[in-house]
Amino acid sequence: MRLKKIFSRSRLTDRRLAAAHNINDLRRIAKRRLPRVIFDFVDGAADDEITKNRNIAAFGRYDLYPRVLVDVSQVSTSTTVAGQAIDIPVILAPTGTNRFVHYEGELAVQRSAHRSGTIYSLSTMANTSIEDVAAADNGPRWFQIYVWRDRALLRGFFDRCRKAKYDALCLTVDVPILGQRERDLRNGFTIPPSLTLGAMIDAALHPNWWLRYFFMPKFTLANVTGQEESGRDDVVSLGAFVQRQYDPSVTWSDLEWMIENWDGPFVIKGILRPEDAIRAVEMGVQAIIVSNHGGRQLDHTPAAIDALAAIVEAVDGRADVILDGGIRRGSDVVKALALGATACMIGRPYLYGLAAAGEPGVDRALAILGDEIRRAMALIGVTSVSELNASYIRHRPYI
Amino acid sequence: MRLKKIFSRSRLTDRRLAAAHNINDLRRIAKRRLPRVIFDFVDGAADDEITKNRNIAAFGRYDLYPRVLVDVSQVSTSTTVAGQAIDIPVILAPTGTNRFVHYEGELAVQRSAHRSGTIYSLSTMANTSIEDVAAADNGPRWFQIYVWRDRALLRGFFDRCRKAKYDALCLTVDVPILGQRERDLRNGFTIPPSLTLGAMIDAALHPNWWLRYFFMPKFTLANVTGQEESGRDDVVSLGAFVQRQYDPSVTWSDLEWMIENWDGPFVIKGILRPEDAIRAVEMGVQAIIVSNHGGRQLDHTPAAIDALAAIVEAVDGRADVILDGGIRRGSDVVKALALGATACMIGRPYLYGLAAAGEPGVDRALAILGDEIRRAMALIGVTSVSELNASYIRHRPYI
Amino acid sequence: MRLKKIFSRSRLTDRRLAAAHNINDLRRIAKRRLPRVIFDFVDGAADDEITKNRNIAAFGRYDLYPRVLVDVSQVSTSTTVAGQAIDIPVILAPTGTNRFVHYEGELAVQRSAHRSGTIYSLSTMANTSIEDVAAADNGPRWFQIYVWRDRALLRGFFDRCRKAKYDALCLTVDVPILGQRERDLRNGFTIPPSLTLGAMIDAALHPNWWLRYFFMPKFTLANVTGQEESGRDDVVSLGAFVQRQYDPSVTWSDLEWMIENWDGPFVIKGILRPEDAIRAVEMGVQAIIVSNHGGRQLDHTPAAIDALAAIVEAVDGRADVILDGGIRRGSDVVKALALGATACMIGRPYLYGLAAAGEPGVDRALAILGDEIRRAMALIGVTSVSELNASYIRHRPYI
Amino acid sequence: MRLKKIFSRSRLTDRRLAAAHNINDLRRIAKRRLPRVIFDFVDGAADDEITKNRNIAAFGRYDLYPRVLVDVSQVSTSTTVAGQAIDIPVILAPTGTNRFVHYEGELAVQRSAHRSGTIYSLSTMANTSIEDVAAADNGPRWFQIYVWRDRALLRGFFDRCRKAKYDALCLTVDVPILGQRERDLRNGFTIPPSLTLGAMIDAALHPNWWLRYFFMPKFTLANVTGQEESGRDDVVSLGAFVQRQYDPSVTWSDLEWMIENWDGPFVIKGILRPEDAIRAVEMGVQAIIVSNHGGRQLDHTPAAIDALAAIVEAVDGRADVILDGGIRRGSDVVKALALGATACMIGRPYLYGLAAAGEPGVDRALAILGDEIRRAMALIGVTSVSELNASYIRHRPYI
Repeated sequence: MRLKKIFSRSRLTDRRLAAAHNINDLRRIAKRRLPRVIFDFVDGAADDEITKNRNIAAFGRYDLYPRVLVDVSQVSTSTTVAGQAIDIPVILAPTGTNRFVHYEGELAVQRSAHRSGTIYSLSTMANTSIEDVAAADNGPRWFQIYVWRDRALLRGFFDRCRKAKYDALCLTVDVPILGQRERDLRNGFTIPPSLTLGAMIDAALHPNWWLRYFFMPKFTLANVTGQEESGRDDVVSLGAFVQRQYDPSVTWSDLEWMIENWDGPFVIKGILRPEDAIRAVEMGVQAIIVSNHGGRQLDHTPAAIDALAAIVEAVDGRADVILDGGIRRGSDVVKALALGATACMIGRPYLYGLAAAGEPGVDRALAILGDEIRRAMALIGVTSVSELNASYIRHRPYI
Repeated sequence: MRLKKIFSRSRLTDRRLAAAHNINDLRRIAKRRLPRVIFDFVDGAADDEITKNRNIAAFGRYDLYPRVLVDVSQVSTSTTVAGQAIDIPVILAPTGTNRFVHYEGELAVQRSAHRSGTIYSLSTMANTSIEDVAAADNGPRWFQIYVWRDRALLRGFFDRCRKAKYDALCLTVDVPILGQRERDLRNGFTIPPSLTLGAMIDAALHPNWWLRYFFMPKFTLANVTGQEESGRDDVVSLGAFVQRQYDPSVTWSDLEWMIENWDGPFVIKGILRPEDAIRAVEMGVQAIIVSNHGGRQLDHTPAAIDALAAIVEAVDGRADVILDGGIRRGSDVVKALALGATACMIGRPYLYGLAAAGEPGVDRALAILGDEIRRAMALIGVTSVSELNASYIRHRPYI
Repeated sequence: MRLKKIFSRSRLTDRRLAAAHNINDLRRIAKRRLPRVIFDFVDGAADDEITKNRNIAAFGRYDLYPRVLVDVSQVSTSTTVAGQAIDIPVILAPTGTNRFVHYEGELAVQRSAHRSGTIYSLSTMANTSIEDVAAADNGPRWFQIYVWRDRALLRGFFDRCRKAKYDALCLTVDVPILGQRERDLRNGFTIPPSLTLGAMIDAALHPNWWLRYFFMPKFTLANVTGQEESGRDDVVSLGAFVQRQYDPSVTWSDLEWMIENWDGPFVIKGILRPEDAIRAVEMGVQAIIVSNHGGRQLDHTPAAIDALAAIVEAVDGRADVILDGGIRRGSDVVKALALGATACMIGRPYLYGLAAAGEPGVDRALAILGDEIRRAMALIGVTSVSELNASYIRHRPYI
Repeated sequence: MRLKKIFSRSRLTDRRLAAAHNINDLRRIAKRRLPRVIFDFVDGAADDEITKNRNIAAFGRYDLYPRVLVDVSQVSTSTTVAGQAIDIPVILAPTGTNRFVHYEGELAVQRSAHRSGTIYSLSTMANTSIEDVAAADNGPRWFQIYVWRDRALLRGFFDRCRKAKYDALCLTVDVPILGQRERDLRNGFTIPPSLTLGAMIDAALHPNWWLRYFFMPKFTLANVTGQEESGRDDVVSLGAFVQRQYDPSVTWSDLEWMIENWDGPFVIKGILRPEDAIRAVEMGVQAIIVSNHGGRQLDHTPAAIDALAAIVEAVDGRADVILDGGIRRGSDVVKALALGATACMIGRPYLYGLAAAGEPGVDRALAILGDEIRRAMALIGVTSVSELNASYIRHRPYI
């Protein structure tokens, strides 16, 4: 506990965070602090990273048209997603192996999400188990699942989530196979790992990351059972596990089965086509997450924000629509909400914060976005997210 | 007086200004001469400064279509704004704390505006009082106000403006709260100030700015009453004052109250939506200033020039429409007028001039724009601003 | 044979290829390994190379819209072109003088194409004869012809192709005269050659290329008969030959004559206008290759992909349509197929591979594209090329 | 004569030109050989030079759509402009003071134009007189005029042109006043000259330019009468003359007067609006030159090529339409002709050639463009300029 204090909550950390005025600042700090292989694993995306960059840049083509002389002395950012009230319209996306990013990993993220009044989505690929997360904090939480080849394993997840009182399940549907992330290939951050000389030298230059890595609790892919995934050889076993369990034959009937076998809200993540959104809604999902997986799966998919409006129209209020991809500013969130999203999901922004300063870094990321959302709402003249609508936005068909 | 001559009207100054052929040249000189914290305060804008840059770049998508064989031996740039005849269709926007920029501050700007035949808008946040400006020069002048929490204070402003014979009041409506200007945060130019080491070293490298700072008359936020705002600690007290007096609950009924309580022309600044313009006109304002506050409030608002045409159409001649934001060339002014603006407003351009060389620098900025406007008018074949219309313009929907 | 092993299949080669994760990586390796005059001959294009670069960049304006929850456990990339079944929808374009690129030249390419399950198009300008290619490998093969002034020569080609069992003839129609390739002019890679000093020094720095050049079998333009084209003076004689034999007076009646005199499938390469495609189809060609010759002929022609849809519509299923130009990623192929192409043709991508590592380099180029195509298909939710259609694509009219 | 040979036709010159494969190469050579003040005078344009750069870049948005299997063994580039047959559809624009660029000046340009089979337009501001040009060469020639305040002077020009058998008069209408060319202001290349130190040092580094300047015949603004314009102080007197004689009050009635008083073809240069073109045609001009004066007058006018189609439509065959501005490639000319221009006019391209190598340099510029035009015509499948039409072009509304 003392040690942790010295490492993560020092005044150095506070000063570092004080200089982070926006999410990009957190990214810069994260880049400096993480070994390159880890930073690239978080920051990188598929192929030429065109979709990843487009996710961010596309917001620039949506203009905000402020209304003036509105009383904005009280601005509320609270809303409700899949039946869960949250204080800011930003929820935390499932992201794998957070302990590579910071030794406190998923627990830090869950605690920070709760403190900030929002939902954390634990990944199947997390280093912390369903149960440990639930034990550490009683904040709102979702569990993210894939459809595994081994349905017994899947039922196991359902039971564990029920017991650990997870609020919703979130099925990721845009990973029938893994995308090619070329930064990882270049760094040798592969399965099995084969770090390049450059990557190893770079890693050696980040001793404080390595130091913490050795001090941290047992490293494991905690949610995927068995001996082979434990210990420090998890990266290899992750690969083997993925190869054994990933099921590219998943179809709509599997979704149907899952919705039937889960008694709480069900969320589907990775939709870009309106007809897929309609089908999911008709099967009974509570929320659709419009997402291209942060550009990490298939390059050249549209920017998430560019796919949003058609899906909102197709869903037509029968489910919540969540926008995932490219959020770097509160104004991005405000634009998505004005176009009909119920909330946004962030991945890299909180991981940058986690890398920059652990739990206080995640707090900072969420505080930055919360402040920016409130400021943008006040400056366009709205006081609650329900007032946001398309009249506040104009899309510019050029750059 | 002698001292002033040595400092500001030296041959060095003249030579410096002779090398300034356009507003960007003045900006370059200003950047060299000002401590970085001051330059950034003037030059910077909110968040990623996208709107600030877009304000300027957007003019590039409006082409000028010249008419030939027109007698342009006499070109007049005079017009009338809010009942006031002016010689050039460019009026000076309210900008705060001009003495940070040059020790002569607002007085230099007022004198230069008058000499150039145009209107100066004194800011509530000026370092020179309503009365001192009026005493120094009898040129046309507006006073810019916010709606303060303390309505007695507001009535006080009205009375002082009446006594000091201000021609119009100009209410700023796009600051219900302050935007986030990240350059200022990075430099530590905050309330209270916490200059970074880099900023302090940079400041030390501009001794002649500091020297003048110490020779100048008592530094104060002269328009906002009381002791606490005087002295050199004004920055801190400005912050405190803003926190106490800024009122984010202002609505249209406050505007109504103000128009009723002021007997001269009333101008509203910071409109981007046609319906807001219509409402203001129906309440009786004489002029609408289309503005996004130079990109200093909410990033991702449209370029001012892109918002102009819809507002001109909505106002439909019932009030003057003034375009504020991004003017750097006379051709920008000509384009705005051709799209229906009565005049344009400039902020940074005259501050660059003020920083470059004090009062002669402001003269130079206005002379440059005046020459450029006359030249552009002659070259498109018009001899008075009333002849300008949309036939001289074509908008290119791409870059 | 031993020698060859040492040179081309060394572990160095394997390691080099292992670091090539995409076609651009192969290009980088090729650039390092080839003398500049040779690399520029392969990589360069006409005039300002605008069309060449546009060929590649234009794919970026076509977005992929994935369908989810489709069983993609089995993805097949096989298709049929001009009656020939192939395993991947990528065929190898005719390219001249491959032995400049690697001493194994055309034989390596033919063997690799066969091994990868696709078609190789031998160029008239190849260094290896029609017969030698056929003798070395029995994979599917096309022969590319021009219309020569000497029709006896042309008949000779037909007879030789029949005897050597070529599957189709492919007439190039976009070279009535040669385009101007300015990199070649700058390097002095002209006819006759007049290498610049810089080019000679650069060449001297690539001894291993020169070494192989001296070990290789007799260098010749093997398909264009006679003594004068043999030996090491081939470049000069190529020029003389081109000047004597190129016929800019070729018209549709020549095409008619050729189709009548050839009993197998006939393919036409270099069409950009729908009416030309229709006319070719009506004359009986089996396949239309939409191509601007990789930007090597006339700069400022449209990107190949931008010309595709109109030609697909005009052809209306009466012939196969092949897209040639700008393919660098499997997703490019998937987009072309979704827009109606039967297959794509690549030139530079396999030459980069050939330059990088000879035959294994071509294997690598084809393997990369094959993997990328399969991955893109799985990730958009299709399992066979016949399922691809325009619903998977949206064209963005901006960058 | 001998001296001239040593200087300008040396093998060094030949080698220099041999390395010039396109107009941009000539520009590079010109930049190296000229003192910066002279290069900038030729290369520069008004204000931010946006229109100048746009003139060139805009051609990039017009694609060429080739037709194949056309007999292009004979391609003719000849056409007729204002009744004059020319061999290439490129005529030479009037440009002032060519002897600043090369000591042979206008005579070199006239001889080269004639040799290349096209028209030279002598400028009023030339260093060589109407009579001297006519005496040196009997090629087709136009004389460019302004409307001077002194109509006797104007009549004098008419008489001299008649006696010297000029084929047409060309009235420039886009210079009611002079544009601001900021490179000249920065270099001190003003009236009177006030070269900056940098410009003087740079000039000293070009001794061979100065050397030739001293060997050349008497330098004068030869067409504008009187003593005061002769001698080496011509720049000052040019300024004085311009101030005295430029007449910004010129209107359509002046044009009428001129057409009546000149018995040959009359050409008007500097039209961008269709209604102005119609009016000029109705007054009887033989040719309209669509031009923004190479971007040297009013910045932010449209690219010349973007203004062409509307004017061609308005003129509707009643006069020739000539496109002036941005031509750097033969394909640019082909595009303009396909959009309805009769011919194109070039200014900077031949001045780059003149600066690079005197008369052979102008030959080279015209040969490059001629070759490029022929090549582009052959490659799109047309054999004469009359076959060119809009079907060969598609305009892309994006970059």
